[in-house]
Amino acid sequence: MFFKQNYNKTIERQDKMSVNITRAGRAVLHVTDLEAAKKFYIDALGFFETESTDDALYLRGYEEQDHHSILLKKAEKPAVEVMSYKVYSDDELDKIEQIAKKHDLPYKWVEKGEQHAIGRAIRLQDVSGMPLEFYAEMKKVDSLLQRYDLYRGAHIQRIDHLNCLVSDVQKAYNFCNEVFGFRCSEYTEDDEGQLWAIWTHRKGNVHDQAFMNGDGPLLHHIGFWLPEPAALIHVCDVLASMGMAHTIERGPGRHGLSNAFFLYLRDPDGHRIELYFGDYFTGDGDFEPKRWSVHDKTRQTFWGHEAPDSWFDEASTFLHVITGEEVKVEKAKLELYKPDFTI
Amino acid sequence: MFFKQNYNKTIERQDKMSVNITRAGRAVLHVTDLEAAKKFYIDALGFFETESTDDALYLRGYEEQDHHSILLKKAEKPAVEVMSYKVYSDDELDKIEQIAKKHDLPYKWVEKGEQHAIGRAIRLQDVSGMPLEFYAEMKKVDSLLQRYDLYRGAHIQRIDHLNCLVSDVQKAYNFCNEVFGFRCSEYTEDDEGQLWAIWTHRKGNVHDQAFMNGDGPLLHHIGFWLPEPAALIHVCDVLASMGMAHTIERGPGRHGLSNAFFLYLRDPDGHRIELYFGDYFTGDGDFEPKRWSVHDKTRQTFWGHEAPDSWFDEASTFLHVITGEEVKVEKAKLELYKPDFTI
Amino acid sequence: MFFKQNYNKTIERQDKMSVNITRAGRAVLHVTDLEAAKKFYIDALGFFETESTDDALYLRGYEEQDHHSILLKKAEKPAVEVMSYKVYSDDELDKIEQIAKKHDLPYKWVEKGEQHAIGRAIRLQDVSGMPLEFYAEMKKVDSLLQRYDLYRGAHIQRIDHLNCLVSDVQKAYNFCNEVFGFRCSEYTEDDEGQLWAIWTHRKGNVHDQAFMNGDGPLLHHIGFWLPEPAALIHVCDVLASMGMAHTIERGPGRHGLSNAFFLYLRDPDGHRIELYFGDYFTGDGDFEPKRWSVHDKTRQTFWGHEAPDSWFDEASTFLHVITGEEVKVEKAKLELYKPDFTI
Amino acid sequence: MFFKQNYNKTIERQDKMSVNITRAGRAVLHVTDLEAAKKFYIDALGFFETESTDDALYLRGYEEQDHHSILLKKAEKPAVEVMSYKVYSDDELDKIEQIAKKHDLPYKWVEKGEQHAIGRAIRLQDVSGMPLEFYAEMKKVDSLLQRYDLYRGAHIQRIDHLNCLVSDVQKAYNFCNEVFGFRCSEYTEDDEGQLWAIWTHRKGNVHDQAFMNGDGPLLHHIGFWLPEPAALIHVCDVLASMGMAHTIERGPGRHGLSNAFFLYLRDPDGHRIELYFGDYFTGDGDFEPKRWSVHDKTRQTFWGHEAPDSWFDEASTFLHVITGEEVKVEKAKLELYKPDFTI
Repeated sequence: MFFKQNYNKTIERQDKMSVNITRAGRAVLHVTDLEAAKKFYIDALGFFETESTDDALYLRGYEEQDHHSILLKKAEKPAVEVMSYKVYSDDELDKIEQIAKKHDLPYKWVEKGEQHAIGRAIRLQDVSGMPLEFYAEMKKVDSLLQRYDLYRGAHIQRIDHLNCLVSDVQKAYNFCNEVFGFRCSEYTEDDEGQLWAIWTHRKGNVHDQAFMNGDGPLLHHIGFWLPEPAALIHVCDVLASMGMAHTIERGPGRHGLSNAFFLYLRDPDGHRIELYFGDYFTGDGDFEPKRWSVHDKTRQTFWGHEAPDSWFDEASTFLHVITGEEVKVEKAKLELYKPDFTI
Repeated sequence: MFFKQNYNKTIERQDKMSVNITRAGRAVLHVTDLEAAKKFYIDALGFFETESTDDALYLRGYEEQDHHSILLKKAEKPAVEVMSYKVYSDDELDKIEQIAKKHDLPYKWVEKGEQHAIGRAIRLQDVSGMPLEFYAEMKKVDSLLQRYDLYRGAHIQRIDHLNCLVSDVQKAYNFCNEVFGFRCSEYTEDDEGQLWAIWTHRKGNVHDQAFMNGDGPLLHHIGFWLPEPAALIHVCDVLASMGMAHTIERGPGRHGLSNAFFLYLRDPDGHRIELYFGDYFTGDGDFEPKRWSVHDKTRQTFWGHEAPDSWFDEASTFLHVITGEEVKVEKAKLELYKPDFTI
Repeated sequence: MFFKQNYNKTIERQDKMSVNITRAGRAVLHVTDLEAAKKFYIDALGFFETESTDDALYLRGYEEQDHHSILLKKAEKPAVEVMSYKVYSDDELDKIEQIAKKHDLPYKWVEKGEQHAIGRAIRLQDVSGMPLEFYAEMKKVDSLLQRYDLYRGAHIQRIDHLNCLVSDVQKAYNFCNEVFGFRCSEYTEDDEGQLWAIWTHRKGNVHDQAFMNGDGPLLHHIGFWLPEPAALIHVCDVLASMGMAHTIERGPGRHGLSNAFFLYLRDPDGHRIELYFGDYFTGDGDFEPKRWSVHDKTRQTFWGHEAPDSWFDEASTFLHVITGEEVKVEKAKLELYKPDFTI
Repeated sequence: MFFKQNYNKTIERQDKMSVNITRAGRAVLHVTDLEAAKKFYIDALGFFETESTDDALYLRGYEEQDHHSILLKKAEKPAVEVMSYKVYSDDELDKIEQIAKKHDLPYKWVEKGEQHAIGRAIRLQDVSGMPLEFYAEMKKVDSLLQRYDLYRGAHIQRIDHLNCLVSDVQKAYNFCNEVFGFRCSEYTEDDEGQLWAIWTHRKGNVHDQAFMNGDGPLLHHIGFWLPEPAALIHVCDVLASMGMAHTIERGPGRHGLSNAFFLYLRDPDGHRIELYFGDYFTGDGDFEPKRWSVHDKTRQTFWGHEAPDSWFDEASTFLHVITGEEVKVEKAKLELYKPDFTI
């Protein structure tokens, strides 16, 4: 009930949309061991190393023309420095500053030159406590889409989405829908019709940003798009042959939600990566979001497999965009569910 | 040279875009034998029959929530009645009427109820002589994306694009870019820097609408999206086992342009269908269109295969939106090229 | 240590081999509900129904030229009537009678005409208590290998192997190697070098017949060969879309042992079916069997997934070839292991 | 008519078979440029280099436990030194000497140590003029089947077959069937019932050795087995991205004969390699060979594609096992056919 209203409002808003966000752009992760990260991300998963320094690793998928979609920085503790969204043009960033001011959100500018290979950016702590960054410009590099001779591991194509645990999904969604124009593709409700999880997008597939009910804010995972199912099977084999089968946390499987063929992995610092393939087009003006009950086993895994506890219980810590300190986690507002039982 | 300018203008224009077109929506084809069409489209290719009458066949792909993406009407002669685009909301249609008036294009309204399963629509003959239709509303049906038990043939997911031969590609592109907001993803130039072919989109992948230099206007093909390469191989086998191998005109192969894995088929009336899988995201504000020389063999087929003459020489006739008569074909403005030689 | 000797003896024996067994041929299963079986085997898995009566269902894979590879008979209780092996020519059957006599095994002839679509057969209870049948002739039918238009579900190609739990693996292997000429491809040992499980073949791939240490004799599963990994993924989707996801017991995954891509299913009566793809050639005279430690996690699942308890604990009951009564199960001689722990 | 008799005789003969040949084992090719060969076979196709010297390159597929399945020797002119078959055990080689003597075929022993990594071998010039080698022993190396981290290019698994043009197919078949025990899986006849082409095997799939009517003897191609169709598509992309699309001569396609998914390539010296996947089991005693008419278009390519002229007209020259001179080519005894026409 609540939902249709929200959704109609969304459509209305898109017509007068002030902020033109294009897509999930990159994640900046802190990792404790760059060599271990290289082995996982480059040697096993097949990310392409655009550039690296003693302190940082800039990685991209084969089709990406932007310098990187994941930036790994050497640090004392694993954490998520920021999740970044690409906007359509530079003047969108000024509109975002106005939003930050209007909603009284902590924010700061990171001028061009302060970060490698990226133009000016604005960082803010959103209403759920997540550190967000917006930028219009990143250094252009060659697409390697047709450099099949370089393909390795999972044949990763591009960043697809970010998925976060938040203590109040409805609040997180309202903000990202009303202010940033993200539209819902699918969502999960509990028996009282409360919003338990939601998948939202700007680029016309199932998601750029998802929220799930949980202690949060925490980054649950970063999703990368694969070119075909065979690449997902192959990377399982590659990981196993390198002695890294333990990094496979869940899958391969088919999501009920999104319909994607998926694999979840944990990097050496515990950050969770989803390899993802095969959702569908969601860009129609009259697209009707798909509702799932929180009790429906098939929403998680269409084939009925249970996810391990770690998938529900573990996620990456965010840092504050101003202080750099760890963002405090609040208890989930709604009950926690695992596919088969309540915890 | 010319191109970057155009392209920058495009970006500018998108900000003040008056017409919000979502995507290629459907094609309305005249066919002479519905039974033969059923055998090809449904039994072999695996299109899902939403509905049929004695005179018409409404087909869709498995993920589509709209009633149909291809409408086959029984007629004396094969022809293309109209190519249809879906707009974001109904009021966009009024803007399109203003465009038709401003550019002095023949147009007419088709009111809701006049066509089955579709809301009010506006049809116009564009500057290249192509019959275009725009609509915001089509009857909603269930997505069959997760009804894998129904999947047959090529496991067709959704309509992807329309590709036309036009006598003046630059003129066709200028109009569809400046007026309808289509953006270029890739293009082909001859040695003089004249635009020989172009791929343009609204939905964020390689194309909704392509133009190729040729005697035109003619519909070259309609492209449908597949879920994975295996489905494309499988449908070749299915066609062969049904004694329909002769409908395979070209492929399987990899396009240099778009990077898609493709197969071209001819329906019993000669209309060309492309099964298409695997291009890439093009929605960034600073996306840089990819240039190909008309002499580059790999633009057509990355693996070097030549296309048969029929692929260059044969295409479907358009009808006039007002008179219903066949649209006269004009000579191509630029030289014709086949991958290896000039004809 | 023990093994190399056995293996060398095997080679020696093959030269003077008296019984020329070709391959695993069929299984005869008792099921309680033929309609439920049809839905599972035909509608979901895509077995081809060669023939059916009120009491029996004869099924085959698409490449098979023999009438059936699985025969389901309606019965009060689920059971395995017999596992059947095809021999190279009819006179091999007489040699098998001599073997039965020499080893004092209960046996009987089933004359041509007593069983539908199959020539004369000899049935015996082997040293492990398994009901085995041998036949040289089965009614020929058309291969449907190139009738891709008929392919459904898992695109099942042919029967591949039979896998049994036996209380004494060494004894079971010795008999089937020395008497029937099955050769080992891979095997599992415990810390004392005792044979814990073994994969043996006649047809030149990893197995026709496997034995695993467990309470037995019980039929663990029947394996069917698929044409490619995509078919295995597809059948998971088909099962889920038909509301039969609960029949998926384990997988998809990659076996360490055999290297096959696998899926385990349970039919409505609990009989276990393995869909299996992608092992390797084992027919060389100097082929060296591969040894695995019972403690090696990757032998079960190369990617590290644990199998569910049911996969270890449940299996199908055999019937006695003479009395038709259930064969009594004896305790496993060696310790039971699950991949991560001892039970 | 002629055929069934031959075939029955074959079966009879297998029972008292004197020569136990296991499979096609290797080819020894002369190439003019080892660096060019490395780029093609290793960098592009993904063969694994077991060993190399200044004059020779020893390559194998990932599952092979034998040292190599293709040996490339640096030479002035491209040629085929020998095609090698692996026998079950060393004493088979003595039987082959008796055969050579009985049929008055030129032969010689190559003692262990004379060739790298291979035991004693016997080489003979067979009735069709082909240089054949037989060996029982080759140096064992690790199977790389589960070293997926090393997989490149076409993920080549193992050698599958050898295919030769011979001037008299019936004569070639009679000898290899009656003397060496190769059994027919499929064959092509002309209108007079004369044997035009034949596929024969020892290892239980469609072929180890094929003969096609043509000016001969010439080696038409060497076939290598792939793990799945996706690998065949991938290697086309890899070749194209390395600027080697011109090495693709024919395919990808589906053979009517054998049902295999195939790709034909030409190495830098013109030797033809087939990448091959997906035939079927042929080992039954009562297996019925499949007959094709020479006029049936689908025998060549199930999907109806024509093969290029080069595929019919070009093949590799054999050398004489004793003199080392090029074997003289004789005119084909039967008419030449291409799928659509007579040349």
